[in-house]
Amino acid sequence: MISIRTDLAIEATEIYSKENKKGAIDGVAVENSSEDDVKITRVDIKNDEGERSLNKPKGTYITLDIPKLTNYEQEDIDRVGKILGKEILEIIKNTNFREDMTALVVGLGNWNITPDALGPRVISKIMITRHLKEYIPDSIDEGIRPVCGIAPGVLGITGMETGEIIRGIVDRIKPNLVICIDSLASRKMERVNSTIQIGNTGISPGSGIGNKRMEISEKTLGIPVLAIGVPTVVDAATMANDTIDLVIEEMTGAATKGSGFYNMLKEIDKSEKEKMIHEILDPYIGNLMVTPKEVDMVVDVLSKVISTGINVALQPALELKEISKYIG
Amino acid sequence: MISIRTDLAIEATEIYSKENKKGAIDGVAVENSSEDDVKITRVDIKNDEGERSLNKPKGTYITLDIPKLTNYEQEDIDRVGKILGKEILEIIKNTNFREDMTALVVGLGNWNITPDALGPRVISKIMITRHLKEYIPDSIDEGIRPVCGIAPGVLGITGMETGEIIRGIVDRIKPNLVICIDSLASRKMERVNSTIQIGNTGISPGSGIGNKRMEISEKTLGIPVLAIGVPTVVDAATMANDTIDLVIEEMTGAATKGSGFYNMLKEIDKSEKEKMIHEILDPYIGNLMVTPKEVDMVVDVLSKVISTGINVALQPALELKEISKYIG
Amino acid sequence: MISIRTDLAIEATEIYSKENKKGAIDGVAVENSSEDDVKITRVDIKNDEGERSLNKPKGTYITLDIPKLTNYEQEDIDRVGKILGKEILEIIKNTNFREDMTALVVGLGNWNITPDALGPRVISKIMITRHLKEYIPDSIDEGIRPVCGIAPGVLGITGMETGEIIRGIVDRIKPNLVICIDSLASRKMERVNSTIQIGNTGISPGSGIGNKRMEISEKTLGIPVLAIGVPTVVDAATMANDTIDLVIEEMTGAATKGSGFYNMLKEIDKSEKEKMIHEILDPYIGNLMVTPKEVDMVVDVLSKVISTGINVALQPALELKEISKYIG
Amino acid sequence: MISIRTDLAIEATEIYSKENKKGAIDGVAVENSSEDDVKITRVDIKNDEGERSLNKPKGTYITLDIPKLTNYEQEDIDRVGKILGKEILEIIKNTNFREDMTALVVGLGNWNITPDALGPRVISKIMITRHLKEYIPDSIDEGIRPVCGIAPGVLGITGMETGEIIRGIVDRIKPNLVICIDSLASRKMERVNSTIQIGNTGISPGSGIGNKRMEISEKTLGIPVLAIGVPTVVDAATMANDTIDLVIEEMTGAATKGSGFYNMLKEIDKSEKEKMIHEILDPYIGNLMVTPKEVDMVVDVLSKVISTGINVALQPALELKEISKYIG
Repeated sequence: MISIRTDLAIEATEIYSKENKKGAIDGVAVENSSEDDVKITRVDIKNDEGERSLNKPKGTYITLDIPKLTNYEQEDIDRVGKILGKEILEIIKNTNFREDMTALVVGLGNWNITPDALGPRVISKIMITRHLKEYIPDSIDEGIRPVCGIAPGVLGITGMETGEIIRGIVDRIKPNLVICIDSLASRKMERVNSTIQIGNTGISPGSGIGNKRMEISEKTLGIPVLAIGVPTVVDAATMANDTIDLVIEEMTGAATKGSGFYNMLKEIDKSEKEKMIHEILDPYIGNLMVTPKEVDMVVDVLSKVISTGINVALQPALELKEISKYIG
Repeated sequence: MISIRTDLAIEATEIYSKENKKGAIDGVAVENSSEDDVKITRVDIKNDEGERSLNKPKGTYITLDIPKLTNYEQEDIDRVGKILGKEILEIIKNTNFREDMTALVVGLGNWNITPDALGPRVISKIMITRHLKEYIPDSIDEGIRPVCGIAPGVLGITGMETGEIIRGIVDRIKPNLVICIDSLASRKMERVNSTIQIGNTGISPGSGIGNKRMEISEKTLGIPVLAIGVPTVVDAATMANDTIDLVIEEMTGAATKGSGFYNMLKEIDKSEKEKMIHEILDPYIGNLMVTPKEVDMVVDVLSKVISTGINVALQPALELKEISKYIG
Repeated sequence: MISIRTDLAIEATEIYSKENKKGAIDGVAVENSSEDDVKITRVDIKNDEGERSLNKPKGTYITLDIPKLTNYEQEDIDRVGKILGKEILEIIKNTNFREDMTALVVGLGNWNITPDALGPRVISKIMITRHLKEYIPDSIDEGIRPVCGIAPGVLGITGMETGEIIRGIVDRIKPNLVICIDSLASRKMERVNSTIQIGNTGISPGSGIGNKRMEISEKTLGIPVLAIGVPTVVDAATMANDTIDLVIEEMTGAATKGSGFYNMLKEIDKSEKEKMIHEILDPYIGNLMVTPKEVDMVVDVLSKVISTGINVALQPALELKEISKYIG
Repeated sequence: MISIRTDLAIEATEIYSKENKKGAIDGVAVENSSEDDVKITRVDIKNDEGERSLNKPKGTYITLDIPKLTNYEQEDIDRVGKILGKEILEIIKNTNFREDMTALVVGLGNWNITPDALGPRVISKIMITRHLKEYIPDSIDEGIRPVCGIAPGVLGITGMETGEIIRGIVDRIKPNLVICIDSLASRKMERVNSTIQIGNTGISPGSGIGNKRMEISEKTLGIPVLAIGVPTVVDAATMANDTIDLVIEEMTGAATKGSGFYNMLKEIDKSEKEKMIHEILDPYIGNLMVTPKEVDMVVDVLSKVISTGINVALQPALELKEISKYIG
């Protein structure tokens, strides 16, 4: 069994099924549904075996496949945002998060790199109410839940592990739920900007240095953590690798099994592939990303969809119209 | 004695001296010097009496009057930045902040309002090293001090007191010194963007709601706090008030003492003035600011001067040239 | 008769009426109406006498007083935008601008100075179609009108008169109508960001140097020019001047007519006032503006309202919903 | 002979030499030199044969290979900028551009797409003087040349061919030289952000629709046109194609000449490759770019180097220090 590395549980199941040539995975339940033009997939990793198979912690991962994000009008944003909100609520329901409890929304990522700026942009559209509830409660409706939010930046910007910053704030502010938003990397261009994953197993921000990353999860924070992620880039090295694999696969298909050619194709090893990737990507290896040209606009629309989903889920007493009055 | 309200200790001394018609203030020592075209004023508030007179906590306040910030070239930024750095070092020297200790630099203010964005813009130019020292110490010079930084946003953006956020982070990261940068309001246009105040008594971020602001100071954080502030706006209501005072003053000077006119001028009271200010500023009262048109450029230059000062002060082992290689 | 200097025709009529203590102005027709919460005032300057009285060229000036621009939701933007669109259409109707003709939309102003960035921000939301009509006509609906747009920058940025740039482009592209959008200065805070003026007499961009400004009008371009302007700032010197006037006025009201005090107030002359203004504003005199703190958000909402109005007026064959699909 | 498609003359010579297995190209002179760590290559396409071979118009193309653009400090920017300035001057020398004549600098590209924003960012750092020379000549030094500049946007933003806009402005303003700056696409990652090409044959902005693009050149404008281009992206389809080629090439090398395998490799045709590229890049085919993650910072540094080069070349009477005082 090879090790599966992808941020998306749904990709992990696909890769597993392909590698192992079977549909069902022991310890993993997959469930499909749809609403309007949004496809919803629920992956439950139920035990250690499922955890090992997919290389992801036990828990629930809900994936929304949303329509292509060009030419979204306000109506589409509202519609898809509400579907997302319903799924977020679904996951929250399984925690002890009562209506008067406080949520802290955390926008992970680097605002200077557009495809990584999703989290910070979402934060700027969250309905922030905690300070009003605390200091001038009469100014807002009783049914409004206290919400606070922050986009702390990344390790290279702050010099501090994002997990440490969040833990410090949580210790002091004592919220009852954390919702994290992050940009992910996908293996496939078709997922980029069109897949939203919600999970209840936390998140490990950034790629970290020396693997000392501190995860943001119920284990480290002591309160439930919901993670919302969207793939906004494909790593260029991944794309090059997949291209090479594809070429080899096509040729293998054409070659006579057992022939010298066929055997040679089977023998192309990792180091040869890596040499080729280096030849293509140098001097930028490890530091290149593949993005659609209109990435700035797409991340903007995505941030509106996700903030709508979070706002709707956190403020069930309000209509979307009322919420949008509060947002700058 | 009237209550003096200004963010600048130097303005407080001026107002006090004018109100009380005397130069020296009991419990306050004022010392002037200059370097190149920068005028340096050191105000030491030594005891409770000085504290009461100036309505500012005991401590040291160093003010730099710097040349007008248009047409600054790199050389000017470096020169003024180094002078600032020397004064920062002067204040740090009186703390137990050893060369291998960690500094946390905090950029206060709202990045969406240009004149309030000084703090966040400084942070983006600070030489951040703590993560390198921690995870890949071999990658940087031994003499380099660990520095981390954050621009947390303001209460209206996060829903959390900035003081609480910083306290949470300090408890977790355990730095040995905090340096805060903030935009201030001045009473006088001539100070705007040309005065830098360094103080060792901490800072109370934002105007707060319900006066529940939590100050950022040695008292609340348990470690020394250095505050760097620059007035970048004049509040429009203050300007209107000062204009009215000036008109009245001019007329009083022209009127015969004891005449009905003279007495009338003396009797114009606060409520009448406020009525006039409202007439001028409605419907925006309390929410208007007076800024130079080129405020964006000026705040940019200021942020370079201040980050240079901080970088030079925190990394005495490096040349400015070496520092600038690290900054994005 | 004193010379009236304001960018707004409606302010000019008010000042004239106040100065001359009469309601009606010879050669000027004023007409009021309203739609929803928007007050509409139409000022027609009909002849030379009206032109002299108001210090504005003959023509039609429609003013919309719109509700305060905080907490606008999409619905409000659409509603006010459509009312604006109707008034723009009203003025266009009097030109020979047929449905298949080309419009050039010009966003005047400096994108680096937030309150002056209204024009450029509107351009980024205009439905641009001319290139599609020209090169891939099958890609869009037949009823769609060719529209092009540009934000050329200001004299200090380009080194060229904006009027010259526009004239060069008009000569080459040959549109049939020009619509200009510009930020204006108002004398009154209450008009700031809540008054939209539409006029058919063209515009003189910026304050120019040496008064060599070339106006953008039917006279210089040979095609009809529609100008849309919104006051986004009050000049600080104007505010100081008005404050001084107000103080003097209040005192004059209180003083006995004929008394020495009364006479002195009447005698305060321009040079004395200017001296006071200098004392207040130095060293920034002539270069200060008064703006609401949330100016960035307000200019953003304004740009959406105005672009909606223009899009609706230029594309009568489309629903607003269809238009918004085209906008980035 | 296959058709060579690349924006860079130096790449065209390399591809030609590789395809044709010979170093020298008839009708083309290549000359190498270096200054400090900058490698300078001069390609002169001298006649129709050279033009046909390289698929580029006759003229001079100077390429600077500059050191990697991370960790540039001000000194490096100045140093490389000056070398660039010298080469620009070298090309200008061959025109009749006298010292008192006017230059128009044009920043091509889309400011909303970071790697395409190079041109607009350069414009914001050009020393603009034409309006001063024209209206207040006493305000600046006599030796200063009149320079104006504009970043007109791209076809999709304006609805007008950029070539038409520039032609309209040139007809009206009558400059004596045009300098265009544009982002290019490269075939090789190693050229990205490290190659600057200066040419005297003009430029065809954007990819155009229906090939109706109007070039910006001496032929269309009637005055000399200098084009400065830097590759800032690799098209993702190009990268995928090159990856596939590389894999095939590697295998071909390993296979026995004449074997079935060898022949099959030779026979993989364009349509098969395109099918594979589609499989990799869908649904974004034709709309994906590969960029380094720190693209924003790199484009910023590049814009400083290029504006320095242009400013130094256009203002030979000034020291670089004096120039930087004029830049915002």
